Amino acid sequence: MRIAIVGAGALGLYYGAMLQRGGNDVSFLLRRDYEAIIKQGLQVNSVAGDFHLPRVKGYRNAAEIGPVDLVVVGLKTFANDCFTECITPLLGEETAILTLQNGLGNEERLASLFGAQRVLGGVAFLCANRENPGTVTHLAAGRIILGEFSARDTVRSKAIAGLFCRAGIDCRAAADLRRARWEKLVWNIPFNGMSALLLRPVDAVVGHPKTRTLARDIMLEVIAAANTQGLSAALPWSFADEMLGFTDGMGSYKPSMLIDREEGRPLELGAIFVRPLAAGAAHGVDMPKTEALSALLELAQPQEAS
Amino acid sequence: MRIAIVGAGALGLYYGAMLQRGGNDVSFLLRRDYEAIIKQGLQVNSVAGDFHLPRVKGYRNAAEIGPVDLVVVGLKTFANDCFTECITPLLGEETAILTLQNGLGNEERLASLFGAQRVLGGVAFLCANRENPGTVTHLAAGRIILGEFSARDTVRSKAIAGLFCRAGIDCRAAADLRRARWEKLVWNIPFNGMSALLLRPVDAVVGHPKTRTLARDIMLEVIAAANTQGLSAALPWSFADEMLGFTDGMGSYKPSMLIDREEGRPLELGAIFVRPLAAGAAHGVDMPKTEALSALLELAQPQEAS
Repeated sequence: MRIAIVGAGALGLYYGAMLQRGGNDVSFLLRRDYEAIIKQGLQVNSVAGDFHLPRVKGYRNAAEIGPVDLVVVGLKTFANDCFTECITPLLGEETAILTLQNGLGNEERLASLFGAQRVLGGVAFLCANRENPGTVTHLAAGRIILGEFSARDTVRSKAIAGLFCRAGIDCRAAADLRRARWEKLVWNIPFNGMSALLLRPVDAVVGHPKTRTLARDIMLEVIAAANTQGLSAALPWSFADEMLGFTDGMGSYKPSMLIDREEGRPLELGAIFVRPLAAGAAHGVDMPKTEALSALLELAQPQEAS
Repeated sequence: MRIAIVGAGALGLYYGAMLQRGGNDVSFLLRRDYEAIIKQGLQVNSVAGDFHLPRVKGYRNAAEIGPVDLVVVGLKTFANDCFTECITPLLGEETAILTLQNGLGNEERLASLFGAQRVLGGVAFLCANRENPGTVTHLAAGRIILGEFSARDTVRSKAIAGLFCRAGIDCRAAADLRRARWEKLVWNIPFNGMSALLLRPVDAVVGHPKTRTLARDIMLEVIAAANTQGLSAALPWSFADEMLGFTDGMGSYKPSMLIDREEGRPLELGAIFVRPLAAGAAHGVDMPKTEALSALLELAQPQEAS
């Protein structure tokens, strides 16, 4: 299958490498890592076993790649303005677009540009960091839950999930993509937010009784908001404690928003905070602690950021 | 009048210098600035006019000072464990103790150690920073509102206010000390807290629409808590907007908690956050945004801090 990876951060590089190793014809749209990958290939240091891809198809712009069967979008959400330029040349008649980006609003934007029928969304539970150019480090997890954005038919989503599974990626198709999105937000909002704000990995946040309690309070606010979004099944309150336990096992993991802040990039506040808060507010859900964290992050993000 | 200044940070040095210049016999209990002040005296760089005191009575421990008429306490509240050692040798039969410290709980602790009848509290609205040893910079304001902790009689508080006024300090005695304490908390909680957390001066906090709104929301929570504390007159909601306007005029002022964090000192979270939150909670006031800020600051403060 011809696959293009758009947005080759840690997530794009890791899944792209797995898909290529699994026998697919993968092209990477690269920026920072272009020189290194063309020269030395792509190195994956993974808890599941390191591997090296000596030959990787790397490109600087999408037109050189041309139409593919599947576009996998791993861009930072603050770069969504490049969708038209980065994705249009990759589209044939039947091309599907799968966004693995964080938060809310990405499928909608892709649908408005390229048609809802092309769009799938996936929620990736992946701990990975990009290190030196041409090297990605996979620390833990990696599961993807994916689903159609608008179509009721699950043939395509199941086929893509099968493709990922055959490449060694833990992946399943879910009928309710939005529920999976909100599940991830329950974790992302407190832990990306507090880690980025305090410049501390998640073990510090979950290890201090005051910030642990705040994380839990924020998760309960997000669960309350989620349960007004017409999900196929409600998220139970106990999901907050489940996520605390999950986080206890993560060690000193740095969430992507912390790394973004450390590296002077904008923060994904629109997708991870602003849209979820608006979705809750639209249904009268009070989310004061999430709001407070969101406001503090607005001032914490690099000055030039929008 | 014989006065001892205990806790010679920016506040203690500034008011002590003013009182000495006004003709009082002032002794300073010093730590960091001892050498510099003994050698070169005390330099005050002030918006109201610079002045220099070539001879200053500086001491390293309170026993060398002996009994005085008035003890002025300017210690950081996280140093309150030294009350016994720092203050006991200064007490004669009639010695009054005036704490100008931040937040809640200081008068109570002094009263429990030395007797309630000795204790007065003052709320200082002072923008001052300590710079090189032996130099204090007075940036703006300086008003003190003081009152008795337990006594109903106002003779002593008016006499002390008069003493301060004759030394050029804007000072008045108020019947309701607690109201003045809560008025200052309305400002201190959002602006000390957010500045310290974000490592930005107050103009950044008040200048960004999101953190400005958060500051206002937090002020409204604190006003709600204040108005359950049996104050002589309620704080109006409009006080929040008044404080925003006041802050707009402060420029890039660094509140003390920001400076404490920058210099690796503990933060005054007990007096400025924990006790006010507990006072609100005891009366059923919901203060979620204040709580969130407080929890984040607990993790932000230097590791060794208690």
